[in-house]
Amino acid sequence: MITTQPKKMNVLENGHVTSPKGFIAGGVHCGIRRKKLDFGWIHSEVPAVAAGVYTLNAFQAAPLQVTKKSLEKVHKIQTIIVNSGNANSFTGEQGYQDALEMQRLAAEKMTVEVDQVAVASTGIIGETLPMDKIRIGIAAMGEENHVAAENFEQAILTTDTKTKHVAVEIEIDEKTITIGGAAKGSGMIHPNMATMLGFLTTDAVVDAVSLQNALRQTIDYSFNMITVDGDSSTNDMVLVLANGTQGNEMLNEQHPQWAEFVEALQFVSQELAKKVAKDGEGATKLIEVNTFGAPTEIVAKQVAKAVISSNLVKTAVYGSDPNWGRIICAVGYSEQPILPNKICVSIGDIDVVKDGAVVSFMEKEASEYLQNEVVKINIDLQNGEFGATAWGCDLTYNYVRINASYRT
Amino acid sequence: MITTQPKKMNVLENGHVTSPKGFIAGGVHCGIRRKKLDFGWIHSEVPAVAAGVYTLNAFQAAPLQVTKKSLEKVHKIQTIIVNSGNANSFTGEQGYQDALEMQRLAAEKMTVEVDQVAVASTGIIGETLPMDKIRIGIAAMGEENHVAAENFEQAILTTDTKTKHVAVEIEIDEKTITIGGAAKGSGMIHPNMATMLGFLTTDAVVDAVSLQNALRQTIDYSFNMITVDGDSSTNDMVLVLANGTQGNEMLNEQHPQWAEFVEALQFVSQELAKKVAKDGEGATKLIEVNTFGAPTEIVAKQVAKAVISSNLVKTAVYGSDPNWGRIICAVGYSEQPILPNKICVSIGDIDVVKDGAVVSFMEKEASEYLQNEVVKINIDLQNGEFGATAWGCDLTYNYVRINASYRT
Repeated sequence: MITTQPKKMNVLENGHVTSPKGFIAGGVHCGIRRKKLDFGWIHSEVPAVAAGVYTLNAFQAAPLQVTKKSLEKVHKIQTIIVNSGNANSFTGEQGYQDALEMQRLAAEKMTVEVDQVAVASTGIIGETLPMDKIRIGIAAMGEENHVAAENFEQAILTTDTKTKHVAVEIEIDEKTITIGGAAKGSGMIHPNMATMLGFLTTDAVVDAVSLQNALRQTIDYSFNMITVDGDSSTNDMVLVLANGTQGNEMLNEQHPQWAEFVEALQFVSQELAKKVAKDGEGATKLIEVNTFGAPTEIVAKQVAKAVISSNLVKTAVYGSDPNWGRIICAVGYSEQPILPNKICVSIGDIDVVKDGAVVSFMEKEASEYLQNEVVKINIDLQNGEFGATAWGCDLTYNYVRINASYRT
Repeated sequence: MITTQPKKMNVLENGHVTSPKGFIAGGVHCGIRRKKLDFGWIHSEVPAVAAGVYTLNAFQAAPLQVTKKSLEKVHKIQTIIVNSGNANSFTGEQGYQDALEMQRLAAEKMTVEVDQVAVASTGIIGETLPMDKIRIGIAAMGEENHVAAENFEQAILTTDTKTKHVAVEIEIDEKTITIGGAAKGSGMIHPNMATMLGFLTTDAVVDAVSLQNALRQTIDYSFNMITVDGDSSTNDMVLVLANGTQGNEMLNEQHPQWAEFVEALQFVSQELAKKVAKDGEGATKLIEVNTFGAPTEIVAKQVAKAVISSNLVKTAVYGSDPNWGRIICAVGYSEQPILPNKICVSIGDIDVVKDGAVVSFMEKEASEYLQNEVVKINIDLQNGEFGATAWGCDLTYNYVRINASYRT
């Protein structure tokens, strides 16, 4: 896993999906939601080489099916449209036809190939898409005053409390390549469900197969390492678009700077993933669990995931309780090979368990540390060379309030 | 899976671990906890054939290690001692020696073989056992006025709000065989953790190997199918003792009434497991998830477990929200082979999804049903013959309150 920020990378102060050259983005209120922006788009001036990853949920929503099929056919995307307020999930044949029509209408409007339009939806499930509203959104795609990355980032939110965006620059072949991204996180809207959407853009020239590999790899170290409540939705999707407007030598695994590109892509993905985790429903804190000394990468990841997913750890962090016993307990039930006499745990810089034994530590100091907005839990298994990082959030009264309130 | 109550079984009105012949039980306050009973015992007048199952947590507590080792050596238990208030977990070599001494002292006191004493602990982890208090408990084991199953059931509790006990009678070889049981559930005490302890007793004559098989099987359909928060502890253990005082023909897999015995044992285990689930921290409702039509039993179980473990389902039940989308979502991410167009879901008797499509149903009626203390969610995968049942509880403000409060 890459854990340090690439040396030559520059993080833009206010980066967006439109920071890379040749992309525009926008968003409007089309009427699916009561007041908030609910329809957004990203558009590249030229067709972009693209790759995607999709939810593993057995009930894959219609827009994912449509996008996946088209992308597998043409390996390019020029336009992405996204609506919030309705997930077009569990909507049967009608839902599939609606997603196809969304795609077709956007292609007409933007004068691009139908298969080069990606569609995404997030919101209520089991209700058919209000296509009249979607048409209003698509019609607005030409209107200058809605073109702003901020509008796009707003339009894709559900119960997220903040927009999530970032961009970085790196030098490739003595050209400045920019990678941007926007995401929405785990918000629940009535009657449903947490959806994670991520959109990455770059102006680099990238080989299609290599881009897919890079996306898969970065996802495994970013969006696949976050949890809010362990529930993964029918609509989760991450897309990456490389429109090649910077004219660098084609980036692929053979390019001498390939690793730098992947690092930068991973940095963008991780930043977005962390923003998603921190903005989890009801969350007051971002929790980062780092594992070290694991015999394999899978062990490192599974242990980190067990701890970050533990309701008991999450409530303890909420209560600023340095409850190392719950951390140990979660490590223990991760079903991974653990050497009980080797384990070390620290909360921030404060050692609490060393070589399998409790360390006498200042509880007050540890409790104070846990009042920070970002809390790190470090676990050294002392049983190998591998490490991993997972991100999550605390479990609070507000999580229960948001999710227990009846839908009306 | 056995889902119906055995025909010839009689559930005793106020059944306990002492309902089977030849068992006594008791409990006292020995001083580990402030006021509550904290030391209990079960004693059989003769050595009982015994079997046990133990937590899979990598950090297995000292008392489990001691009990397991002895039981594997002699396959018999005559006396069980249990303390609450301190789990003797993560206590290293000192903890192991303390567990051994507990065992030895109780053996002396009750004049039984050392290896025929089982020891169990539940409570705080990472602190060494106050052996002076344990000695006070062991000394009290002879005192008549503390002998009462109710005292035992009280003494093993932590943050449980109720004692959990049950007993049934069945006819085997024209003799009345009784099976009793007591359990404690998922209570958290400072600084730690949910421990599940179960103790089953019977006066039947049972073969040792067959008893182990029967226990393993019934556990898989009872204690292994409940969840409160997904966290499994270092101290979980279930023991079964068969003291043979009823003098039936030896029960084993060849006995014509073996299935009846196993059914009865399973019934007792399931009743205890349900009581544990219903008394989960902060819980207001028992949730039962039934799966049907699965291609294998593993699929049936995994789907049931995914749904019962979903924080989103648990909060929806708390809020009496018939949020079928969250149920579908959890089925979808269970990583099992699901046919999206086949799935049926009902909440109680109210169909909400049929053949992969939403049914228009009376939301008010469904919401009213969800206000019951016991809530059933039924999922038919229409893809095979297998079924499973899992139990859990709702996720409430009180769960967060109990587990977020700082330990001091």
